[in-house]
Amino acid sequence: MRIAELSRTSGVPVPSIKYYLRSGLLPPGERTAPNQADYGEKHLHRLRLIRAFIEVGGLSIAAVGELLQAIDAQGENLHQALGTAMKATLPNQTSTDSPHLVQAREMVDRLLTERGWGIHPDSPRIETLVAAAEVFLRLGQDDVEDLFNKYADLIAQLAPHEIEWIARRKNTDEVVEVAVVGSIIGATAFNAMRSLAHEVVAARMLSEDKDTN
Amino acid sequence: MRIAELSRTSGVPVPSIKYYLRSGLLPPGERTAPNQADYGEKHLHRLRLIRAFIEVGGLSIAAVGELLQAIDAQGENLHQALGTAMKATLPNQTSTDSPHLVQAREMVDRLLTERGWGIHPDSPRIETLVAAAEVFLRLGQDDVEDLFNKYADLIAQLAPHEIEWIARRKNTDEVVEVAVVGSIIGATAFNAMRSLAHEVVAARMLSEDKDTN
Repeated sequence: MRIAELSRTSGVPVPSIKYYLRSGLLPPGERTAPNQADYGEKHLHRLRLIRAFIEVGGLSIAAVGELLQAIDAQGENLHQALGTAMKATLPNQTSTDSPHLVQAREMVDRLLTERGWGIHPDSPRIETLVAAAEVFLRLGQDDVEDLFNKYADLIAQLAPHEIEWIARRKNTDEVVEVAVVGSIIGATAFNAMRSLAHEVVAARMLSEDKDTN
Repeated sequence: MRIAELSRTSGVPVPSIKYYLRSGLLPPGERTAPNQADYGEKHLHRLRLIRAFIEVGGLSIAAVGELLQAIDAQGENLHQALGTAMKATLPNQTSTDSPHLVQAREMVDRLLTERGWGIHPDSPRIETLVAAAEVFLRLGQDDVEDLFNKYADLIAQLAPHEIEWIARRKNTDEVVEVAVVGSIIGATAFNAMRSLAHEVVAARMLSEDKDTN
């Protein structure tokens, strides 16, 4: 199909498609004339992925580029490819030195060790977790370990279910793509549900307060 | 303290502090001379919040501005203030029309109705959830409802625990701030733990595959 039809079918404006082509997010179409190219189902699919990551996942163009590379660079081994894709899905934060940093690091060490999750001590995820713990401690919320332990307990239930759900896909191509989409768009869905549930729970508490007054 | 000391104590460079002052994220200090202002503990605390939202929460300057307004605009009622703050924490996505949109909307309606979470049918969270579901469906992952139901089951356990944890704070000021921080930085922590757990679970599956080969 021509770029105009690609735009109609995908709902993505032509200037955006051209921008994705220039940025290398979208591979070039097959050239059919000096000023004309032909696009296929692969382009349509890739375009949907790009828009999902940007609009629903809230990612930057640069982050989408890295993710697509991770998807494209999948190795022969399903689990390795999955691991690679998973690693590309969270930003890497660096934490400046602070009085609470040691306390945060000890807390995260405890949490990971207790659950046998400390297999990658240099993982950027761990630095993110330490940085998050430090924020709470710095703001005087010393009981943040209760909250994080609850998170970890629920994630211990969630992660095997998610991996099993991803592993149901039939071929490696699909597994890697779904692992990345599940990580980004799954997190968006989880956060939206969590906020909804907060609204509901807070509203119930409010109405209980009224009933008892 | 002078701006240089505020910078030293907080670890935030002076140009960044000046930028936050210009953008209105940080309230002006008390003027002590035509070219000199005095900053206190409140500025230090606010500066830490701003940096946490940007560096750990991954928010934009504009989003931080909205959040701080939500924190500052808290009403007399604790639960109302909490609800307001919660509502400011997720981006509002709009979904373009698509063949899968109806299916996504029905799925989300089912999920919310079954759990009694449908109290705010116009909530932007619901639109986010529909948009996320639509991404999976559009990519051919028709069993996304299994995944989302698992998310919802875990969130039904998590949300009351989180609200209870927030409600432990002694005064309304602190409750509102911690609700916002918990929502943003809590989500960052949760996502980091989730990715860590994915790595661990995938690595275990890989070693089990090796053992059986």
